[in-house]
Amino acid sequence: MFFEGSEKKIEVIVTPATPSLRSLGRPFWEDIVGKAHAEILSSVSNEYCDAYLLSESSLFVWDDRFLMLTCGTTTLVHAATHFIDTLGEDAIAFASYQRKNEYLSHLQTTSFEDDLQLLRSKISGNAFRIGHLDSHHHYIFYTDKPYKADADDITNELLMYHIRGDAADYLRSDKQDLPGVRTLLALEEMLPGFSFDDFLFEPFGYSVNGIRGREYITIHITPQENSSYVSFETNLDLTRQPLDVFARLLGVLNPGSWDVIRFNAPHDSCGFPAHICLGSAKMALEHGYQLHFSHYQQLCHEKLLPEII
Amino acid sequence: MFFEGSEKKIEVIVTPATPSLRSLGRPFWEDIVGKAHAEILSSVSNEYCDAYLLSESSLFVWDDRFLMLTCGTTTLVHAATHFIDTLGEDAIAFASYQRKNEYLSHLQTTSFEDDLQLLRSKISGNAFRIGHLDSHHHYIFYTDKPYKADADDITNELLMYHIRGDAADYLRSDKQDLPGVRTLLALEEMLPGFSFDDFLFEPFGYSVNGIRGREYITIHITPQENSSYVSFETNLDLTRQPLDVFARLLGVLNPGSWDVIRFNAPHDSCGFPAHICLGSAKMALEHGYQLHFSHYQQLCHEKLLPEII
Repeated sequence: MFFEGSEKKIEVIVTPATPSLRSLGRPFWEDIVGKAHAEILSSVSNEYCDAYLLSESSLFVWDDRFLMLTCGTTTLVHAATHFIDTLGEDAIAFASYQRKNEYLSHLQTTSFEDDLQLLRSKISGNAFRIGHLDSHHHYIFYTDKPYKADADDITNELLMYHIRGDAADYLRSDKQDLPGVRTLLALEEMLPGFSFDDFLFEPFGYSVNGIRGREYITIHITPQENSSYVSFETNLDLTRQPLDVFARLLGVLNPGSWDVIRFNAPHDSCGFPAHICLGSAKMALEHGYQLHFSHYQQLCHEKLLPEII
Repeated sequence: MFFEGSEKKIEVIVTPATPSLRSLGRPFWEDIVGKAHAEILSSVSNEYCDAYLLSESSLFVWDDRFLMLTCGTTTLVHAATHFIDTLGEDAIAFASYQRKNEYLSHLQTTSFEDDLQLLRSKISGNAFRIGHLDSHHHYIFYTDKPYKADADDITNELLMYHIRGDAADYLRSDKQDLPGVRTLLALEEMLPGFSFDDFLFEPFGYSVNGIRGREYITIHITPQENSSYVSFETNLDLTRQPLDVFARLLGVLNPGSWDVIRFNAPHDSCGFPAHICLGSAKMALEHGYQLHFSHYQQLCHEKLLPEII
């Protein structure tokens, strides 16, 4: 029943001279997604964005950029290098590639170092790890071309581990359905005006993409006992929403530990469950991105149960 | 500069009908150690025990049992299966095989599951993991033959991660020497009457075995910045020593986090630095071993520094 929920992520911004990425059409993106060993399940579009729900996570395409997240044992780095090969390295204004720590990294087909070697054979850039190897950590590669990010080019990521309680039980049960999960997450209430596209996997697991204008949200739930993982990511300014989205998700899903990663967004832990912040880092990247990483643990002692192998 | 300090460990107790394991002689044990891709560097002996310091950790041989720990990318499971093949499965009264979480498990030649499959092809037994996969955890396999452990068959393990401060700086420096490390660890003071055998690796890294009668201690220091690891293990009854050994080591080495594993020994965290115990487990194994596992973190927020890759 093990499934690696933690995602690899690529974000690419193309130069103004490059044709619209949306105009490349669905077959182009099906090919890109296939290079990562994933496939497109469904999609939702608006004036600005095509959001594809994948067999393993999500792809969002705007005219000037795309964002792709894949989990499991997908090979996202091959989608990235195929994109660079197809459009040419000159078309890339900025690219970043990220990997979170995995539950079982030895089951992955490549390590971050392997991916880095491949990426750097196509495009030059810097890379680092934040967080200790024996705890939650995050790898980031980003290109070293001159590029200046807008101050409102925001990303907020909330990565939750070991969800517990009623919501976790429901998400592991055979009673769940799409309306039930939407209600549990209070999607419509938290995110008014968004168009959602969601999917329930067998025997469990849930993914949703949501778009509103240029804004996106994506949630992926791997509820498996002992290796549960839920990710939320958005480019929304969370300080201007009707509800405190992070606090709400943490309250419902009740994870034992969680990480917050923000680009160009103020960090605030008000409304979080009682916790200890084990470690955090703030960095200014050359392109104007202000990066914040924090690793949290619920402030309670956990009685560990042996897992029979 | 990366070195995987965390150990794999095998302990075997043979049946009364089996000849003394010490009488098998050094060439036999050199062969066993070689199967794990390690080698014997030096040894110290007394009336009860031959203690071998290895290129990667330690081997202790008594008449009726042996204990071997190896770190790095050694293949300890092959030493275990070779021993079983040579003496025959019938000679084994009890065996256990353990692995700690590694910093970089994808660099290991096998996973615990791989090792388990190999072990179970030679001898049957149970296995479990304690601790979450995304945090400190410990794998244990043990044979399911009828065997009754003595209540005074004690093991105390202290596994320290991310050592910091003056001692850590000294252990990473080119100023260190054997007398200096012995003084730093206060070995003679903590463990009067022990015969020690120690080794300083290039460019750094320290191992020591100590024996006194049937009692042993072993310490292995991998001081590398960002992936430091120090292990202490003993069959001493720590409640009857002149000094609080665990508190002393924690005080000197100042690790950011540490785990305690005990078999048949009362758990006590008095004297530990200010901490939060993130999780713990207590279990009674069939053979009469009372197992205790606890994972600790210093009670302070850590400013994480990015590690360039």
